[in-house]
Amino acid sequence: MNHPSTFRQLHNMETPLILPNIWDVGSARLFESIGAKALATTSAGVCWALGYPDGSSLPIEWLIELTKRISAIVKIPLSIDMEDGYSSDPCTVAMNVMAVADGGAAGINIEDGTGDPSLLVSKLKAIRSHTDKRKTDLFINLRTDVYLQNLVKPEKAKKETIRRALLYKQAGADGLFIPGLSDPNTIQEIAKDVDMPINIMAWPGLPSAEKLGQLGVKRISAGSAIAQGVWQHAAALAKNYLETGDSDPIFKGAMPYADLQNLFK
Amino acid sequence: MNHPSTFRQLHNMETPLILPNIWDVGSARLFESIGAKALATTSAGVCWALGYPDGSSLPIEWLIELTKRISAIVKIPLSIDMEDGYSSDPCTVAMNVMAVADGGAAGINIEDGTGDPSLLVSKLKAIRSHTDKRKTDLFINLRTDVYLQNLVKPEKAKKETIRRALLYKQAGADGLFIPGLSDPNTIQEIAKDVDMPINIMAWPGLPSAEKLGQLGVKRISAGSAIAQGVWQHAAALAKNYLETGDSDPIFKGAMPYADLQNLFK
Repeated sequence: MNHPSTFRQLHNMETPLILPNIWDVGSARLFESIGAKALATTSAGVCWALGYPDGSSLPIEWLIELTKRISAIVKIPLSIDMEDGYSSDPCTVAMNVMAVADGGAAGINIEDGTGDPSLLVSKLKAIRSHTDKRKTDLFINLRTDVYLQNLVKPEKAKKETIRRALLYKQAGADGLFIPGLSDPNTIQEIAKDVDMPINIMAWPGLPSAEKLGQLGVKRISAGSAIAQGVWQHAAALAKNYLETGDSDPIFKGAMPYADLQNLFK
Repeated sequence: MNHPSTFRQLHNMETPLILPNIWDVGSARLFESIGAKALATTSAGVCWALGYPDGSSLPIEWLIELTKRISAIVKIPLSIDMEDGYSSDPCTVAMNVMAVADGGAAGINIEDGTGDPSLLVSKLKAIRSHTDKRKTDLFINLRTDVYLQNLVKPEKAKKETIRRALLYKQAGADGLFIPGLSDPNTIQEIAKDVDMPINIMAWPGLPSAEKLGQLGVKRISAGSAIAQGVWQHAAALAKNYLETGDSDPIFKGAMPYADLQNLFK
């Protein structure tokens, strides 16, 4: 199901929209069942679950299939992390994005990474020309890696982020995602200067959702952190089982089979 | 990669083959990396990850794709749980099994469930006629649900299991999987009377691998237990994040991003 207007509205609440990012159909349904208001994928988590490294190497077909399958079984809005759009050609990126939107996504993330911001602007314009033509309401969250990848000197990062935000906003962005930014003062200053909902990613030491809301943040994302915790837990359980064959440790704290079956009735 | 002879050999070791069952490409690669000698799917885990309930409702196409994708990135033998073969027609079941074998599986599980054992015999004969004709070495592990689903009165379960084992062996089975059986004496008696490697599933209170080996067991499987533990862990992390937006709890005990990237290089 597609709910672009609901999703858009969730970026304008008093407290930030909290997204515990998902990596497969199962985690989508699970997090919906425990109270998520919307769902968003973590590209890293999705790639690892499918056996690919994070970093735009995932075949787009997998992502389209995943979008369709999640949309078929959840009722809340879904946003898909599309990394760099899976091409350096703006037209191809627009086609990829429209396929994901047609698959049921209410929003996407697309990032500049280490690339030239003007390339992302071109991609964004190509996407918007399609969504406008087809009257597809799609929440486009622009991710800038200025902080995450230290693209400029620390003292210039805030200014560069705000400069890019303006470029992206003019090209049709709906929101700005700034992973790697965690300093409360800088968050507040950027939120004040950028005329779009600000999205911050979980980071060690980051303030709570309540505090981030007071700083002007409208959306917070777990990124790949929950997926990474789940992988570690899987490894620990499997390692113990491989070493001992003991049943009891793997049943301890396991979700009941019947509860899981109920999720997918 | 397909390693049917290696997989077959792993059922004749002094200590049981231990299978921490997998549910997606990522868990396959992860469990290989921590020392599993072979991999086997849990049908329940696979279904849940893809958004289906356990119980032969998974479209066979998904399972074939999964088999291909796992086989493309792991180097150890892979066995696929095929539930009832996804059809009541033996010819269709044989086609499904051959597609999974062609996808890279070294073995499969197929089960009688609540159905007539003679139906499973027909399916098995149809599969064997194909593997023989095409000289495909495929380890076929027959699962009987006599204990798991209490198909007969408790005092008749052992005899019924041994009776079915003979039927299945004559039709071409390579191993016998008896989920739900956990009593050490009964395990030992069945292992003595059945002329195939015995596979026992993790169960609360089940003895360790070493003890099971002494009872004659050749293979033990986690079933869906590890997957269920992982689901519970995912739910707990996401719930806390949804309630607080706090970053620190989701990073605690998370597998490092770089380690995960390394798994898929």
